[in-house]
Amino acid sequence: MSNETMKIPQATAKRLPLYYRFIQNLYASGKQRVSSAELSEAVKVDSATIRRDFSYFGALGKKGYGYNVNYLLTFFRKTLDQDELTKVALIGVGNLGTAFLNYNFLKNNNTKITCAFDVDPNKMGTTIGDVPVYHMDDLEKYLAEEDIQVAILTIPAPVAQIITDRLVQSEVKGILNFTPARLNVPSTIRIHHIDLAVELQSLVYFLKHYPTADIAE
Amino acid sequence: MSNETMKIPQATAKRLPLYYRFIQNLYASGKQRVSSAELSEAVKVDSATIRRDFSYFGALGKKGYGYNVNYLLTFFRKTLDQDELTKVALIGVGNLGTAFLNYNFLKNNNTKITCAFDVDPNKMGTTIGDVPVYHMDDLEKYLAEEDIQVAILTIPAPVAQIITDRLVQSEVKGILNFTPARLNVPSTIRIHHIDLAVELQSLVYFLKHYPTADIAE
Repeated sequence: MSNETMKIPQATAKRLPLYYRFIQNLYASGKQRVSSAELSEAVKVDSATIRRDFSYFGALGKKGYGYNVNYLLTFFRKTLDQDELTKVALIGVGNLGTAFLNYNFLKNNNTKITCAFDVDPNKMGTTIGDVPVYHMDDLEKYLAEEDIQVAILTIPAPVAQIITDRLVQSEVKGILNFTPARLNVPSTIRIHHIDLAVELQSLVYFLKHYPTADIAE
Repeated sequence: MSNETMKIPQATAKRLPLYYRFIQNLYASGKQRVSSAELSEAVKVDSATIRRDFSYFGALGKKGYGYNVNYLLTFFRKTLDQDELTKVALIGVGNLGTAFLNYNFLKNNNTKITCAFDVDPNKMGTTIGDVPVYHMDDLEKYLAEEDIQVAILTIPAPVAQIITDRLVQSEVKGILNFTPARLNVPSTIRIHHIDLAVELQSLVYFLKHYPTADIAE
């Protein structure tokens, strides 16, 4: 990991996959340059933030020209390690889990759900979106066999910690937690938590307390 | 809306629903005070951030005592307008939409999904999680009848903008967008965008580039 990468603030790093997707689209449509205003319109991030974000990795737009699409594409592909596949397991094949399996994660990036787990015997041996569903009893076996580094948790909250403890014992390094449970893990494991109820409540709070026009997302 | 509320930074405001939920739990369990360290452990936000967040709304913990749970609960209930119900429509009853309908949003807050819409005739007249499913043709009618202020979008990306344009024409003020599409709306409408592929790619990026132990979420 280079020092240059280390200097990128977390908030900027979170926007990189978003920028990358739209720069891919621009490239695919044959566009050779793009202004921060155009990018801003497409990704819904204000252009001052885009210019600041891009300045961290040395992409300096020229006034009246903008940014070179090919340069940006090469940078993002390298930075986001698009050539290296990260294998992902999905734990919990309910409605939310099924939505994930049907969503094509490979379309714009380098992550792939290669196996799914559930306790329902009726789901064993099936495939959803080409992903095989295994029994939870075989979790450790397939995590090791498939060299899984990331798990998506779409299980009921009451069992979230128990399953997390088993993931920690395996080689999983990152967890995308869609349950309302806050999970205890060693500091070597990274968790991103997306709580659907909190997201909704947060939107409602902003509607009531903040004028929409002058807030950048 | 008071000036005091207006001074709260956006990042702090986003954490309020999370704090509120855990303070409710503490209160329900009979706890009368809580330290920032205990809160930090429960909500997985570092305690310096919690102390700074709480200082914005004048909740000053005492050294060796911590925060008064009852005071915090009263503050959060008032701030998050827990006594006022916000009605929500869910648009698109696929797997992701069904997951939302089965998720009990009323458990910890004051939002309620009161109607859902889909184009599939087989879903008309059914209820999922006690929420009636209507045809998309009747969208404007029920949005008006039910006084809907917020919509959750769980429809395919290619139709997201068309449906959004119809929401804008109605009285909807906020949209929780779960499609990969970036939507164009007037500045009077607030959109929060949760892109599942971007969330996964962001987690993978952080795993590769940031040491986990010293990053606060």
